[in-house]
Amino acid sequence: MSPAGHRLGDLAERFSLELRGDADARVVGVATLARAHATQLSFLANPLYRRGLETSQAGAIVLRDTDANAWRGHALVARDPYVAFARIAALFETRGERTPGVHPSAVVEVGASIDPGAHVGPLTTIGAGSRIEAGAVIGPGCVIGEDCSVGAGSVLVARVTLVGRVRVGRRVLIHPGAVLGADGFGLANDAGHWIKVPQLGGVQIGDDCEIGANTTIDRGALDDTVLEEDVRLDNQIQIGHNVFIGAHTAIAGCVAVAGSAKIGRHCLIGGAAGIAGHIEIVDRVTVTAMSFVSSSITVPGEYSSAIPVQESRIWRRNAARLRRLDATTRDRGKRGD
Amino acid sequence: MSPAGHRLGDLAERFSLELRGDADARVVGVATLARAHATQLSFLANPLYRRGLETSQAGAIVLRDTDANAWRGHALVARDPYVAFARIAALFETRGERTPGVHPSAVVEVGASIDPGAHVGPLTTIGAGSRIEAGAVIGPGCVIGEDCSVGAGSVLVARVTLVGRVRVGRRVLIHPGAVLGADGFGLANDAGHWIKVPQLGGVQIGDDCEIGANTTIDRGALDDTVLEEDVRLDNQIQIGHNVFIGAHTAIAGCVAVAGSAKIGRHCLIGGAAGIAGHIEIVDRVTVTAMSFVSSSITVPGEYSSAIPVQESRIWRRNAARLRRLDATTRDRGKRGD
Amino acid sequence: MSPAGHRLGDLAERFSLELRGDADARVVGVATLARAHATQLSFLANPLYRRGLETSQAGAIVLRDTDANAWRGHALVARDPYVAFARIAALFETRGERTPGVHPSAVVEVGASIDPGAHVGPLTTIGAGSRIEAGAVIGPGCVIGEDCSVGAGSVLVARVTLVGRVRVGRRVLIHPGAVLGADGFGLANDAGHWIKVPQLGGVQIGDDCEIGANTTIDRGALDDTVLEEDVRLDNQIQIGHNVFIGAHTAIAGCVAVAGSAKIGRHCLIGGAAGIAGHIEIVDRVTVTAMSFVSSSITVPGEYSSAIPVQESRIWRRNAARLRRLDATTRDRGKRGD
Repeated sequence: MSPAGHRLGDLAERFSLELRGDADARVVGVATLARAHATQLSFLANPLYRRGLETSQAGAIVLRDTDANAWRGHALVARDPYVAFARIAALFETRGERTPGVHPSAVVEVGASIDPGAHVGPLTTIGAGSRIEAGAVIGPGCVIGEDCSVGAGSVLVARVTLVGRVRVGRRVLIHPGAVLGADGFGLANDAGHWIKVPQLGGVQIGDDCEIGANTTIDRGALDDTVLEEDVRLDNQIQIGHNVFIGAHTAIAGCVAVAGSAKIGRHCLIGGAAGIAGHIEIVDRVTVTAMSFVSSSITVPGEYSSAIPVQESRIWRRNAARLRRLDATTRDRGKRGD
Repeated sequence: MSPAGHRLGDLAERFSLELRGDADARVVGVATLARAHATQLSFLANPLYRRGLETSQAGAIVLRDTDANAWRGHALVARDPYVAFARIAALFETRGERTPGVHPSAVVEVGASIDPGAHVGPLTTIGAGSRIEAGAVIGPGCVIGEDCSVGAGSVLVARVTLVGRVRVGRRVLIHPGAVLGADGFGLANDAGHWIKVPQLGGVQIGDDCEIGANTTIDRGALDDTVLEEDVRLDNQIQIGHNVFIGAHTAIAGCVAVAGSAKIGRHCLIGGAAGIAGHIEIVDRVTVTAMSFVSSSITVPGEYSSAIPVQESRIWRRNAARLRRLDATTRDRGKRGD
Repeated sequence: MSPAGHRLGDLAERFSLELRGDADARVVGVATLARAHATQLSFLANPLYRRGLETSQAGAIVLRDTDANAWRGHALVARDPYVAFARIAALFETRGERTPGVHPSAVVEVGASIDPGAHVGPLTTIGAGSRIEAGAVIGPGCVIGEDCSVGAGSVLVARVTLVGRVRVGRRVLIHPGAVLGADGFGLANDAGHWIKVPQLGGVQIGDDCEIGANTTIDRGALDDTVLEEDVRLDNQIQIGHNVFIGAHTAIAGCVAVAGSAKIGRHCLIGGAAGIAGHIEIVDRVTVTAMSFVSSSITVPGEYSSAIPVQESRIWRRNAARLRRLDATTRDRGKRGD
């Protein structure tokens, strides 16, 4: 970003948007409709917030053609304002540039291979047989175990752990606290005692994936756990061993996916949902928040099972009825109601 | 704490309690009713455990006036014995004192500002533009990114990450594994591919907050994610971008709060509950464990939606009836039952 | 493992299996039925996958007597093929051997005691008064606080935190990101403000336990939080203060166990289930995934309360009926339906 920000005319041209207003006007930052100053760019994607146009002080707004007449200032008209705004806002992101090289406090084991164009931050360890490609950034406090690889342009923000046999593709972004490649939960019961089933597989993360903070992705038992490209995982998600997640699927925070589940492409899984093990979900399935998928889903569509709250005194009575629902229904049947 | 512990008379005076017994008797530690020795102080807050008075060997007990007659030993009578005990027990806490200064193994970037009265532990990194105030303790293995601040007297126990633009108030306690300021989960869909929406906001944590182990609080997309003062978060909680949590609200473990939710003051959120995004909960709302708040709550009170377990063979039948409940009810309506 | 792998005859003898085939044939690795090459060993435990025998290229298969006739190649016949396979697969596990000694980048405080036969990895800190026994492995990036102990043969893979007063038994395996001994969530409310209740207890982990990635186990308030021997915890589990978990119990990922709950021996808790505080579950109880145990369970058996998903448009109607279930039932009663 130049000190003087960006010309609206340049933004319109670069992102193929229609400019309504002064091509020479400049914006130096981005903000919400409510907070944007006269030098900042904002956006309107959801018509619900259209009233915000009336009072916004923004220097320019990215919006739809159908909303443009309600705005008196400079506008960048987009077919999809949220996508256009996301692209423009990226120009204003200042993720501290990391210079190539290995910080002197990092511990790199013999046999690790680090491209001269990669950055390895302070207090990070890189294990034997692991490879860090050009342009990759391994932030402070990461632990990269043995036999891992991090592809070109990927960023491990800080305190990420790749335990072993983890292959991370290109342009992947992994947030702090994420643990990839820990043992799956494999146990065999031998007369009441647990025998650990060795977890010998790895983890494959496709290009352009994003993995949230404190999310865990276990290594496979024998084969690998796999995320295809452009899979987006929010924070605190648990992905069990040998799970397969198809390309372009997005999963919100706190979802639990049990071992060997297969999730299709272009799926959306809502927050805190649960997916049982050894089931299969086809492409283009949406599961809403806090729902439980206990068996395979074979038809695209939207699926739910969460119950919204009520006042507790009312809910308790409803829950009590539910717990007798089968018995009451059968009684009623017998009585001929 | 003096080697000889505390005189009961001194405790009574310091905490404005009524002493029944020997003012010169001393206690050197605290313990439960069942385990306390003759030199230890215990407490009775919940009348359900009153029978514990009969057999307790405690040297003294903090209890209510109405329970005092059931106890033959020294007593400190309190209006609220749990609060009084909490305050007294703090005298016996020996959180290892941390001497001011920066451990030689810590990595402090140029441009970070650390008060001479702050402690920075081993193997911690402090990024450019970050400020650590007097009396703050940054424990071992923490990663403080760029442009963060930690207020006077705050403690980051160990392995805490502040990613960037995180402002932590005074006397805040943050437990290991917590990640504050990671990117929110902002995605725009462009013809089936995800475009990352830059996350440019920060995180504000008010004075006297507590953040549990492995809890995550994302930075805002444009504005900040905000916790007012005296907010208490247990472990493994996920707080999405641009969430606002009012003062004196306490949230139990494993709760998921989706982006832009607003939670009022003096709320209590039970464990593993889910709060949907873009909704608002007024002050003084209680949500019980494992409940799902999918829309705004405008009236103070207690809300629930969790179902207690039954024997599986019974539950399966009830769940099956539930999944047909609308169809059956409509059929019955048609038949005129 | 010798370079040439293992003779089938040796495996049969060592693990008391019946060999059907060539005792001198060798296997050099393990794999699934579908992927195993002619030099690899596979297994068939679940009869559902029996058809995999028809096409498998495996060099040998561990299976039940009743499945052996369907397989034309070498077989190791076992009463419990999964247990037998787990034991054999362990021979092929190459968890990088860790040489005894303390890495020069580790920070060991005065007063810590580390057995010469223990391994302390890079960038790890060991606090005063802590003890690491012979054969224990403390991986990279761990933080061991004060007054902790790690028993002989235990492995903290990487980035594990033991905050303080944590006693880990022998042969315990703890995965990255786990936090043991953080403060429990103890609060007393004093006229709307929270008073922290000091957390002075510790954590006891019995022999042969396994603790998953990013799992948290809080220290007790006064007494200890306790796991007996052979307890198996998956990832992202939250164990509150003063919880007690009996021997041989296994808990799947994302389960939340609130403070002072007591779980018996040989229990199985499914993923993302919730266990309320101060309740007791007897031995040999199974709780299925995403279920909520809100009160004590006194009879062994299987318990559930999760609802499987339906198409959202159908589910919404059913949920709406459920939320009126008590009112409708009472109305029907009045009308004499």
